[in-house]
Order: sequence, then C-alpha cells, then structure tokens
Amino acid sequence: MEKEKMGSKTKFQTTPSAIKTFVDSEFELVSFNLCPYVQRSVIVLEEKNIAYKRIDIDLSSKPDWFQKISPLGKVPLLKSNQGVLFESAIICEYLDEITENTIHPTDSFEKARHRSWIEFGSSILAGIAGFYSARDCDSFYEKRDILSNKFEQLEQQLSTTTFFASDSFMLIDAVYGPIFRYFDVLQKFLDFDFFATTPKVSAYRKNLMNRPSVRQAVSSNYHELLIAYLIKKETYLSSLMQKQAA
Amino acid sequence: MEKEKMGSKTKFQTTPSAIKTFVDSEFELVSFNLCPYVQRSVIVLEEKNIAYKRIDIDLSSKPDWFQKISPLGKVPLLKSNQGVLFESAIICEYLDEITENTIHPTDSFEKARHRSWIEFGSSILAGIAGFYSARDCDSFYEKRDILSNKFEQLEQQLSTTTFFASDSFMLIDAVYGPIFRYFDVLQKFLDFDFFATTPKVSAYRKNLMNRPSVRQAVSSNYHELLIAYLIKKETYLSSLMQKQAA
Repeated sequence: MEKEKMGSKTKFQTTPSAIKTFVDSEFELVSFNLCPYVQRSVIVLEEKNIAYKRIDIDLSSKPDWFQKISPLGKVPLLKSNQGVLFESAIICEYLDEITENTIHPTDSFEKARHRSWIEFGSSILAGIAGFYSARDCDSFYEKRDILSNKFEQLEQQLSTTTFFASDSFMLIDAVYGPIFRYFDVLQKFLDFDFFATTPKVSAYRKNLMNRPSVRQAVSSNYHELLIAYLIKKETYLSSLMQKQAA
Repeated sequence: MEKEKMGSKTKFQTTPSAIKTFVDSEFELVSFNLCPYVQRSVIVLEEKNIAYKRIDIDLSSKPDWFQKISPLGKVPLLKSNQGVLFESAIICEYLDEITENTIHPTDSFEKARHRSWIEFGSSILAGIAGFYSARDCDSFYEKRDILSNKFEQLEQQLSTTTFFASDSFMLIDAVYGPIFRYFDVLQKFLDFDFFATTPKVSAYRKNLMNRPSVRQAVSSNYHELLIAYLIKKETYLSSLMQKQAA
C-alpha cells in the first residue's frame, strides 16, 4: 500500500557550504498516514516549499526495503542522494537548514528553548496516546488529567502572538499542529473540553488549524481514518465512541 | 540529598552573537547520580572546559523546587541566567554552540546524521533498561537479542577511527560513553559477551572508556551504586547477580 505525492519545486541552500539546485524527488519522505511525527516533516517541507515524494507504508506490515534502511523501524524517514535521516525533529531542522529563510531561532538559547518545547510536544503526543489507549474509566480520567496538566504548562509558555513565539510560523509550530489535530476528532466524543481553562492554547490551536501547511499535512479522509483506528481499539474511549454511534 | 561540584572556568562564545565571559556557576546542571543522560551533559561540559555546578537530586523523591522548573520531571536540566533548558541532546548542542571549537559536524547532512545516531543511542539506552528489567528467562534473552542487534547496526556505522566518526572526540561520543559504561558492570554477571561479534564496537567502547571526560562523568562509587540498583530490582538479572554473590 504505497502512495506517492509530488511536492513543489524549490531552490536549496546548504549551510554553511554553497548553494545548490536540487532536482525533483531529491527527497523521499517515508511516511504512515496517521503518524503525527510524519506530519511535522510534511509541514516543514510545505512551509519551505521543498520538492519531495511521499511514500506511505503500512506500519503493521513493514516492507522489506524499509526494514533494511530504517535503524529504528519508525517513520518518518528522509531519503536523499546523501543517505537516510531519521527522527522527525532532526529531519525538520535539516530541511530548514538547507533552505533559505530559516524558520528556527538564530539565537543559541532561544533555539535551545524551542527545541526543549519541541521535546515537550513529543511528551504531549505520548500523553494523547496514553489517553486514547486507557482501558478503563479510572485510567481514562487519570490520563486526561496528565494531558490537561501539559496544556496548562504550555499555557504558561505562550504569549499573545499568533503562534508559539511569533506571528510568523516557525519550526516549533510544525510540532504543535499535529498535536491539536487530534482534538478535532477526540472532542466530538467527550463531555469535557480539554482547552476550557487555557485560552492561549485555544487561540494557538485555532491559528494552527487555519494554517494551510497544517491543514494539508494529512489526507482528506484523515478524520475517518483516525476514528476507525480509535474505535477498533478496545479502550474506554472506544466504548464512548460506540455509545455515541449507537 | 544534594551535592555540588564545581567545574573549571572557561571563556564562552555565543554564536552567532558576540563572545562573552561567563562567571563561575553561570550554569547549574540538575542531575541524578546513575542517569546516563546526565552523563552526556557532564562529558560535554568537561570536554569544552565549561564552569558549572552540579546538583544531584533524588529522583525517587523529587524536591519541590525541581518540580516547579522541570516541565518533564526529568534530568538533566540546565539552569542559567537565561532560563532553564531540558533534554540532554539539546543541552549538549547548546553547550557546544556557545563555546569555541565546535565538536559537532558543520556540514548540515553530516550533523543530521550524527543527530540521528544520537537518537539511536537513546534507543540503545531503552534497550539496556529493557534488558536489565526483564522478569523471566525468556524475556531476558529476547531483550538481549534486541540489544545485540542494535550493536550490530552500530557496527555498520563505524569505521576504524578512534571514535564514532573521527579520531577527535565529538558530541556524539558523549552519548556512547554512558552506554558502554553499563557493560563494565553487566558483563561481570553474564556468561555471554555482548561485543563478541562486533569488533569495531568493541574498539570504540575501549577508546571511550579511556577518555578522561567519560571516566570522570560519574562518581567513584558508580559501579557499587549501579550494582545495588540492579540487584534491588526483582528481575532475571538480579537473580543471576545474587547467585554469583552467594
């Protein structure tokens, strides 16, 4: 089950070396349709107008060629003439660095702070997986509280800018887009609002979900795919979902 | 249970901004005595001759002040006049970047490749924890094979240089030092050799364990502490350790 999608063309800049022009399909992004980490790379590829070919694989039945080139057996994987790179934050920084007009801070401390909060974003993703995987009512609400607490921590980091730290879209925003996307689906089945007490996070969520690169980082049937994925698991959430569907 | 240790003085460089001279104790590294991720930061601080104060906390009973400033509740944490940074790989890159004579690749692809294999190093640490936490014989050998397989993958990445990619010590080497340190203890209790079929990994291990910054990144009673930690867990490994002690 492999699909290919062509991105747009662009000129590349390698730093600190010389500027090169890459041909189409220089980059292949090995992907999985529901993976939030893949979405980070897709958003950066789109924001920076980088030509690429997307290859979706079925993670439950990994192709042999993928096993051979993927040291961690995970997506995303970025293939280029120079070799294979893995881990989404690394791929995103690389893509930003080899192209003009960086979307990452240039100040060393501020860049490290963004990276720290990108890592925090990964812990939110783990919190989301913990929440939708909870087997019973008690652990469901326990995981909800852990996740809510993370959004309260995030609230403290935000100001009144459009995105995480700026009115311009930055690399860290590619991390939070895929996080908030989950809640477009999850909130349909919940009788509580994850963002009721975090107005800055709410505004950030809305601004991100209006960003074309974020909207277009998944296929048009993403909501249906995610609902099917969640309902198939035998979890407390899937019982809520089935009750609502009945 | 907090200890403080003073590092040596140095001059700092912020890139791309101006060169500054920092006073002693500009940096505080919040640590835990057995944490391999902390060791990465300590090694980079030592390699780059950066003044710092080390504060060891008890992770099983986290102080209030730590909970307040640590978004993930994990160590290491780097405190400076500018704020708090978390996640070891981020701290290491920051420390390298603000000081002279970088120990990270300057070429974008090569740097990203190093970062990918730093991430792979984290997966080895997860593999080590899986191995020493295995409850029964079957899972013990299953986890051993997973870990061995990772060293075989690493073998393919190494050449005949002293360290990962060079005869000079680089940032990625600060990640592999703490990994190999475990085996100085683990191998005492095992009737198989993790590195029997990976000669390049063996040589790399030996070269790293001879590096002063790596040797000195833990306290002099590290082996005793690790043995006590491992033997206290009710695992297949602890049963082997107790048998040998009997």
